[in-house]
Amino acid sequence: MEDPRQRAIEEHIRGDAYAATLGAHIEAIGPGYSRVRLTVTQAMCNFHGTVHGGVIFGLGDIAFAAASNSRGQTAVALDVNISFLRPAFPGDVLVAEAQEQDLSGPIGLYDITVRREGDGQLIAQSQAVVYRKREWFVPE
Amino acid sequence: MEDPRQRAIEEHIRGDAYAATLGAHIEAIGPGYSRVRLTVTQAMCNFHGTVHGGVIFGLGDIAFAAASNSRGQTAVALDVNISFLRPAFPGDVLVAEAQEQDLSGPIGLYDITVRREGDGQLIAQSQAVVYRKREWFVPE
Amino acid sequence: MEDPRQRAIEEHIRGDAYAATLGAHIEAIGPGYSRVRLTVTQAMCNFHGTVHGGVIFGLGDIAFAAASNSRGQTAVALDVNISFLRPAFPGDVLVAEAQEQDLSGPIGLYDITVRREGDGQLIAQSQAVVYRKREWFVPE
Amino acid sequence: MEDPRQRAIEEHIRGDAYAATLGAHIEAIGPGYSRVRLTVTQAMCNFHGTVHGGVIFGLGDIAFAAASNSRGQTAVALDVNISFLRPAFPGDVLVAEAQEQDLSGPIGLYDITVRREGDGQLIAQSQAVVYRKREWFVPE
Repeated sequence: MEDPRQRAIEEHIRGDAYAATLGAHIEAIGPGYSRVRLTVTQAMCNFHGTVHGGVIFGLGDIAFAAASNSRGQTAVALDVNISFLRPAFPGDVLVAEAQEQDLSGPIGLYDITVRREGDGQLIAQSQAVVYRKREWFVPE
Repeated sequence: MEDPRQRAIEEHIRGDAYAATLGAHIEAIGPGYSRVRLTVTQAMCNFHGTVHGGVIFGLGDIAFAAASNSRGQTAVALDVNISFLRPAFPGDVLVAEAQEQDLSGPIGLYDITVRREGDGQLIAQSQAVVYRKREWFVPE
Repeated sequence: MEDPRQRAIEEHIRGDAYAATLGAHIEAIGPGYSRVRLTVTQAMCNFHGTVHGGVIFGLGDIAFAAASNSRGQTAVALDVNISFLRPAFPGDVLVAEAQEQDLSGPIGLYDITVRREGDGQLIAQSQAVVYRKREWFVPE
Repeated sequence: MEDPRQRAIEEHIRGDAYAATLGAHIEAIGPGYSRVRLTVTQAMCNFHGTVHGGVIFGLGDIAFAAASNSRGQTAVALDVNISFLRPAFPGDVLVAEAQEQDLSGPIGLYDITVRREGDGQLIAQSQAVVYRKREWFVPE
């Protein structure tokens, strides 16, 4: 059974306005982990007809924010490096996963992958750093 | 007077579906340069109440794509590193500028800034690399 | 028993002049993988008395080059993002590992870690991209 | 005339052991700025016969450290993204420049370029982030 504090944290994270705007579904939130899913549409494409980098990054960023704030402490993104491996297309279902790699003082390090469901191909991978404030959005 | 080839390139770039979805306005496209503007709304915010990293990145990415494809040759993003300096808020007008720094064989390097209009504060800065294909979306 | 082509590739990689200059030992080279070890000295420190970022990056870069050239095809670094997690000190033994994550056309993606031997602490992590030329430094 | 505090800061920075080991010359240190020069040798090359990425990064990192510590406050590198544009060769003289772009709370952002003297070609460019501690290595 989930504890009430964890439920409050998840509710707060699931209230992300931009995730709702984009149509992304936060499927899982655990300590230092999150998985988010999105079905991409024509409206999310660039002028080459492939899914826009901003959408791919945004999907990964939703997972990153959920993972790095998963303990109720406010974490803000400092730096994200994204490598784009191959294009995604309208109709693709994309799954982003963010996984904590390290915590060191106020700094946290995360790996993020965005894969296409079905063939599992890697669309993009990120390495991302947060600064963890001495603030808790859900009190300890 | 603008030449017809340049006009065809600009029309193609301005047809970006995601820019329209986001509400971003491509204000300027020149050789290796672009400037894009966006008024941010509540719907673009994260669960901390600040503008989502995916929106800030996406705005810069629209400018980056316009700048790196500004000569009609197809360029695709390989790697983007974004540093977030300070938060932006609903109601802010954000202006992204992308500027070519170097071309070397198939590789192009771009600097991207996202600033808040008014106080001119730097919200985010990126360094970004494209791979330029031997394809022209508007023939030479 | 190792085949002669693989031996020729390894000999070429082990001839790295800078690895010898730095005193780094290439311990393992496999397909898309390498591990490199270095005992750090006072002469490798910065003015804060900790191991210089250039040495930590350089150690990881030796592993990255070995991993990405491990099949005899010439690969050159395009972009590397390094996050520094905690300081290393004179006398530390550092171990870098590079692991291929993906190959897509001419592009290869690698993860690199630099850890302190003994406590296993993560000193730095990189995400790195190569461009693979249509050249083989050891013929196929 | 230079003030004594600034002279103490410069002396501290010029005491960098690794800069001496590498043979790099710190030519200029100003507020948020530094320029460093290095003549590259065979011993700094990789197995492709070009200057090692670790040396190019290291040179830029010496400039970055000088620029980001130029006010006597201890700054440590958090994240550096380097893009490699073209190779450098033994005998080349390389000049690195680091320039502060922004300060925001404990975070500082720097641009770093490494150019070949003579033709001025861009060898590498970095975007780099420091965390500024509440410590001064030369008291205020």
